[in-house]
Amino acid sequence: MRTKRLFTALAFSLALLPVAAQQNVGFRAARVQSPVVNADNTVTFRISAPKARTVMVMGDWENEPRAALTEGKDGVWEYTTPKPLPSEMYTYRFMVDNVMMLDPVNAFTRRDVGNVFSTFYVGGGNGDYYKVRDVPHGNVTQTYYHSDAVGQDRRMTVYTPACYNKNDGKKYPVLYLLHGSGGDETAWPELGLVAHVMDNLLAEGKIEPMIVVMPNGNIVKTAAPGETSENHDYKPMMSNQIEGNYKNGIYETAFPEIISFVEKNYRVKADKNSRAIAGLSMGGFHTLFTSLNYPEKFGYIGLFSAGLNLTGLDMTLPAYNDIDGKLSNLKKKGYKLFWVACGNADGLFQANKDLCKRMDNQDMKYEFVETSRGHIWANWRQYLLTFSQRLFK
Amino acid sequence: MRTKRLFTALAFSLALLPVAAQQNVGFRAARVQSPVVNADNTVTFRISAPKARTVMVMGDWENEPRAALTEGKDGVWEYTTPKPLPSEMYTYRFMVDNVMMLDPVNAFTRRDVGNVFSTFYVGGGNGDYYKVRDVPHGNVTQTYYHSDAVGQDRRMTVYTPACYNKNDGKKYPVLYLLHGSGGDETAWPELGLVAHVMDNLLAEGKIEPMIVVMPNGNIVKTAAPGETSENHDYKPMMSNQIEGNYKNGIYETAFPEIISFVEKNYRVKADKNSRAIAGLSMGGFHTLFTSLNYPEKFGYIGLFSAGLNLTGLDMTLPAYNDIDGKLSNLKKKGYKLFWVACGNADGLFQANKDLCKRMDNQDMKYEFVETSRGHIWANWRQYLLTFSQRLFK
Repeated sequence: MRTKRLFTALAFSLALLPVAAQQNVGFRAARVQSPVVNADNTVTFRISAPKARTVMVMGDWENEPRAALTEGKDGVWEYTTPKPLPSEMYTYRFMVDNVMMLDPVNAFTRRDVGNVFSTFYVGGGNGDYYKVRDVPHGNVTQTYYHSDAVGQDRRMTVYTPACYNKNDGKKYPVLYLLHGSGGDETAWPELGLVAHVMDNLLAEGKIEPMIVVMPNGNIVKTAAPGETSENHDYKPMMSNQIEGNYKNGIYETAFPEIISFVEKNYRVKADKNSRAIAGLSMGGFHTLFTSLNYPEKFGYIGLFSAGLNLTGLDMTLPAYNDIDGKLSNLKKKGYKLFWVACGNADGLFQANKDLCKRMDNQDMKYEFVETSRGHIWANWRQYLLTFSQRLFK
Repeated sequence: MRTKRLFTALAFSLALLPVAAQQNVGFRAARVQSPVVNADNTVTFRISAPKARTVMVMGDWENEPRAALTEGKDGVWEYTTPKPLPSEMYTYRFMVDNVMMLDPVNAFTRRDVGNVFSTFYVGGGNGDYYKVRDVPHGNVTQTYYHSDAVGQDRRMTVYTPACYNKNDGKKYPVLYLLHGSGGDETAWPELGLVAHVMDNLLAEGKIEPMIVVMPNGNIVKTAAPGETSENHDYKPMMSNQIEGNYKNGIYETAFPEIISFVEKNYRVKADKNSRAIAGLSMGGFHTLFTSLNYPEKFGYIGLFSAGLNLTGLDMTLPAYNDIDGKLSNLKKKGYKLFWVACGNADGLFQANKDLCKRMDNQDMKYEFVETSRGHIWANWRQYLLTFSQRLFK
């Protein structure tokens, strides 16, 4: 972020409001600026911590996820990345004397599973698709569908493109986009920056206008942590840690409930070639088995670093049995695109190659995209950028 | 929060994903539990900080906004409030060796203007309306209206009640709910917990089903910080610090654009007695002058700790001139409810009393509600609870 405005507490507000009554009103003079994306796309981090003995920064950029800051004058610690960072949306935290914390002068944060991170953008490439541009913006809605399978109203996030609001009767294709373990219906909108990506690709004419449906994939939970009637008692955790939740086949089997809700409540093209399904990690697992069990539903299938390690999976469950037979059936029913992407540093790389081998054995068409790095949002955002441009054309 | 689940990192995920590739995947073993709402509604805060010399907690509860934690064994610091806290949604932060930080084991946060806070609920009263219950849930949508006045698409948040989704042609009244200085279209949904409040009141039969429209009140900005094309260069700040923004009359004058958008895009009752407008602080100022300039538009007017200190206001602007004449005109045109609420510790208390005196001088009907405390969200949430039950009946 190239800071163009100084952030100063003005006398007006202090005069207007008694200090004692507004201790949590959130303005303050930032004594340091952090992070600063420099002209060469190196990034400088600073924190005022005069009493600290060690300060580290940990971020999700490559090669140097942990680096020590150096103390300068007035107790302000500083670190600049030795190399420019590639264009991306990054997350980071500080560790001050072994206590993990956000950057106190950066108000931009994202939660990823159970941790909250400070964020920044580096522009000039993919990152420019993750930013807001002055283009028409679609709607983002949190809504609820009723699941008969579990007897509950369950939350989902729905993106509709700007042109949808013309209310001209036009119908749209739908991408069902599934989150990973530990995620929920807020993961793709918040960390995948779906609305920005779709708005920007559409404004450039690179994608067909489409609706993106982001349901909650934790079938025993109605919504994200904090948005269920457990409120703060439901701590964010990996999905396999949620009792009764993981790999039981219920979510994949009940998936048509989601499609029915969407097709009833939105102006949607309701044919196979107007439906795509894709998911990251656990969502890739859900994508595979949902499309195998409903081979007539989806013309486009996308696996993003899919959680295809089948160790421990109950292969006797109808949702998961007879993978090869179901692949054969999918081939027979036909599809437009079966797209598999994985980072070559991802522990799931081989499991995804193994699926491709199964498809090779049946002469099934698919595309395999190998990228660098591992099980990270930078890859998933990039996969969405690429995959969405292949849909509905 | 009464913690019922232990939060442990399971071997499964570690085995599945290589550690190097997932440094930001957010699960971890919480070594301490914090905050813990005890059986008597005292609250215990803990943080592991073995190298720290001082640890403070600062929160928005009454009387003790700043308290020192005591170091116990293994470097875990702890503090318990001496008294039970009233039922509420609270925000807090830690200060470790003078560095401000979130509670590292609490994933639930809210941004208020330029600061991010950890949050918790205390139940048994108002706080129970701010929590999610197992009741029908309405939709929350981020959408954009075009403002001809400023030539931009501007973001707003819209709550529609659960029954709206029946798509049965039924039309609904609308509450226009305005944020304060430093806020934006996310303030009422995130800090005012509007969807939860409305869902819960409606489920109890205490309010009429209504749409709640929460526009952005910073007329030179299209959306919240991070959601405009300035991206992270637009730092959250008080609204009067935004160049060209504050008290220029443009927002109030252009308000019918918002009404037109809502009445075109939603199933809305479009008569005066089906429209309410209310706002907190700067939003109360906006509410007053919008309703004075458009006396035919709103049947219900609510001022929540309204920013009615008129010092420095350009009273020659058509939006702000002739207050008494406009009050007289409003009286002539008629209204169902003029509701003014303010905390008696608020620096704006006298300015709100002064408005009431102006209305007394003209024998205008209004209700003045004096509450305790000051310029805080606890009051604004409570005012919404009370005011919304008075609408459209």
